[in-house]
Amino acid sequence: MNGILFSFEGIDGSGKTTQVGLLADALRERGLVVNCLREPGGTALGEKVRSLLLEPSDEPPVPLAELLLFSAARAQIVQTRVLPALARGEVVILDRFYDATFAYQGFGRNLSLDAIVALEGIAAGIAPRRTWFLDVPLEVAATRRGGRGGGADRMEAEAEAFRQRVRDGYLERAKNSPERVQVVDASVPVAQIHGEILTDALQILGKAGSAS
Amino acid sequence: MNGILFSFEGIDGSGKTTQVGLLADALRERGLVVNCLREPGGTALGEKVRSLLLEPSDEPPVPLAELLLFSAARAQIVQTRVLPALARGEVVILDRFYDATFAYQGFGRNLSLDAIVALEGIAAGIAPRRTWFLDVPLEVAATRRGGRGGGADRMEAEAEAFRQRVRDGYLERAKNSPERVQVVDASVPVAQIHGEILTDALQILGKAGSAS
Repeated sequence: MNGILFSFEGIDGSGKTTQVGLLADALRERGLVVNCLREPGGTALGEKVRSLLLEPSDEPPVPLAELLLFSAARAQIVQTRVLPALARGEVVILDRFYDATFAYQGFGRNLSLDAIVALEGIAAGIAPRRTWFLDVPLEVAATRRGGRGGGADRMEAEAEAFRQRVRDGYLERAKNSPERVQVVDASVPVAQIHGEILTDALQILGKAGSAS
Repeated sequence: MNGILFSFEGIDGSGKTTQVGLLADALRERGLVVNCLREPGGTALGEKVRSLLLEPSDEPPVPLAELLLFSAARAQIVQTRVLPALARGEVVILDRFYDATFAYQGFGRNLSLDAIVALEGIAAGIAPRRTWFLDVPLEVAATRRGGRGGGADRMEAEAEAFRQRVRDGYLERAKNSPERVQVVDASVPVAQIHGEILTDALQILGKAGSAS
């Protein structure tokens, strides 16, 4: 197991997916094999779980069942994609991983944090070497999503309160695992964020060079 | 929460489903409201999980993912069927519950017992007041299933070894939770097994009367 596992975290509009692509390109330019993965898709089971959760139903899954379905997709992607790539010595970049579960289901939707943490050990069983949490003020994320930031109506105000809890969840994770989770100020220009992350990644990979 | 939860366990051919029906009928005759449930079906999610697991796939779920899918169906049935019935003061009889996971996935397929036990707490979160493990010699079960008991070929020999491990798993559970799990000799006539179980059930329910 000589490969390296990285993950990116952040609320929608944090620029996460852009940064995943930029880091992957930069590492590939340096000759590394990079796998970008995103849960719950990427496996046949993940796609089925996704469609199962999106299908309208008279009796939708209870939040705990939803958590367990996501965990099943996670176990599948870890065992069939992540671990084999790491065993081949490759780089794996996850666009969200278990910190997202902690932040969204735990803090956002108030599911039991004990259950969530227990499931991390069961379903994932592996920790990223580094996780970058792209932190942006909620107004900036709203603008990037193309939505309104004003919280003009009740629905939007609730959505903002939810995102605030999610952000709090991510910050809690960063506080609890400071050696793994790095909080990145994602309100600065894209190239600057990328530079910071690439420098960190290259240091971890033990390579010479810095952000280009 | 004044209802009572019972569960039946046993390998295929142990007569489990027959005994569930007999107990339910006997309790209904005494005026109780009885719900018989069987995982993973009984809920929309359970049916989807079942078909997801049965569908042929180029990339079937890894055993751990399968365990998590079953756990999701379990969480759903517990929260949407079992707990509401118990809250109404009714009797719930489960045709297999988490002991089956311990026996089949844990002992039968060698999945991590720690993971299985952790998931019990997460997905079920409730223990039956009594579990009857219908124990039969493997040869008797084979005859009842209408199959061969001889282990003539390699496949059948493997299947027998598997069932033996499952039985060991159930016996381990009975040893660990003697106050909950009762081992019932299920090689005797059906009426006699039913009598023993009904007496026990009525005692638990605090009702007068014994096996009729």
